[in-house]
Amino acid sequence: MNYPLPDFLAISIALERETEERYLELADMMEAHLNLETAKVFRDMARFSKMHGDEITERAKHVQLRKLKSWEFRWRPPAHEVGDDEGIHYLMTPYHALKYARENEVRGMNFYRMAAEKSQDEEVRRLGNEFAAEEKEHVEALDRWIEKTPRPSATWAEDPDPIQSV
Amino acid sequence: MNYPLPDFLAISIALERETEERYLELADMMEAHLNLETAKVFRDMARFSKMHGDEITERAKHVQLRKLKSWEFRWRPPAHEVGDDEGIHYLMTPYHALKYARENEVRGMNFYRMAAEKSQDEEVRRLGNEFAAEEKEHVEALDRWIEKTPRPSATWAEDPDPIQSV
Repeated sequence: MNYPLPDFLAISIALERETEERYLELADMMEAHLNLETAKVFRDMARFSKMHGDEITERAKHVQLRKLKSWEFRWRPPAHEVGDDEGIHYLMTPYHALKYARENEVRGMNFYRMAAEKSQDEEVRRLGNEFAAEEKEHVEALDRWIEKTPRPSATWAEDPDPIQSV
Repeated sequence: MNYPLPDFLAISIALERETEERYLELADMMEAHLNLETAKVFRDMARFSKMHGDEITERAKHVQLRKLKSWEFRWRPPAHEVGDDEGIHYLMTPYHALKYARENEVRGMNFYRMAAEKSQDEEVRRLGNEFAAEEKEHVEALDRWIEKTPRPSATWAEDPDPIQSV
């Protein structure tokens, strides 16, 4: 996709704001279940997203941004039915919450990479590469946490979404 | 999942509001691509969701509702990467927009059915069955539209998400 700069900036801001909100939700969820260490990871990640979103907003302040559609920036929820027992409990475990975050950070990284690769706007290419590198660091940070996080019991043994290298 | 009434009402309202917003987005998308007939379907569906959401809100006005997490009510976006060429274009076709809507209506219907089946609260069982029946009508209405809607060209021939009966 060959993004013009205003579209790239609009999607980037929306992605960072969405990411910040999801991390705050995940942090609340972890705190409610007394997983304070994982909550702290998510609060840190939320702060990084906020700072990054603020920077891009500052960069875009003289640019007319279009209104986006939800499917252009929203995180994809885990593949469980709304309200089924498994779905409700799924993100209560630090392991699955971290994996959920990681999957969506990878989506963000891929967006930035793809924009950098395909845009004909030099500024989009420059920013896309810079932002992709930041997202890669987030994915790697999450990977380190996932490695340290005990995998939930046998009930959760099947993992439909194995980790892919970045 | 055995929902207490306040949780059931909170999720029901959030689902209907989310559904209304998504239909308005889809209607805008269809209008932007001059698919006015499909846009009208989505505007009608948005209106039904609004009316239903208003009714449930009225029913819940003396009930203390908890704040929900996004994954408890949000629509699941189509399985394409953020910003990839296919993802961006995917919902521009009436066929795929209708399928996307249908998939999420089925999720809503399943939520209501499951709540009706598993709750020990008689009012949740009663409302769950009533709302599930409404959602079933929406799914059937979408099915009639999908049947009348030309399937996009060979590029879209593979359908990873065939229609399942309700």
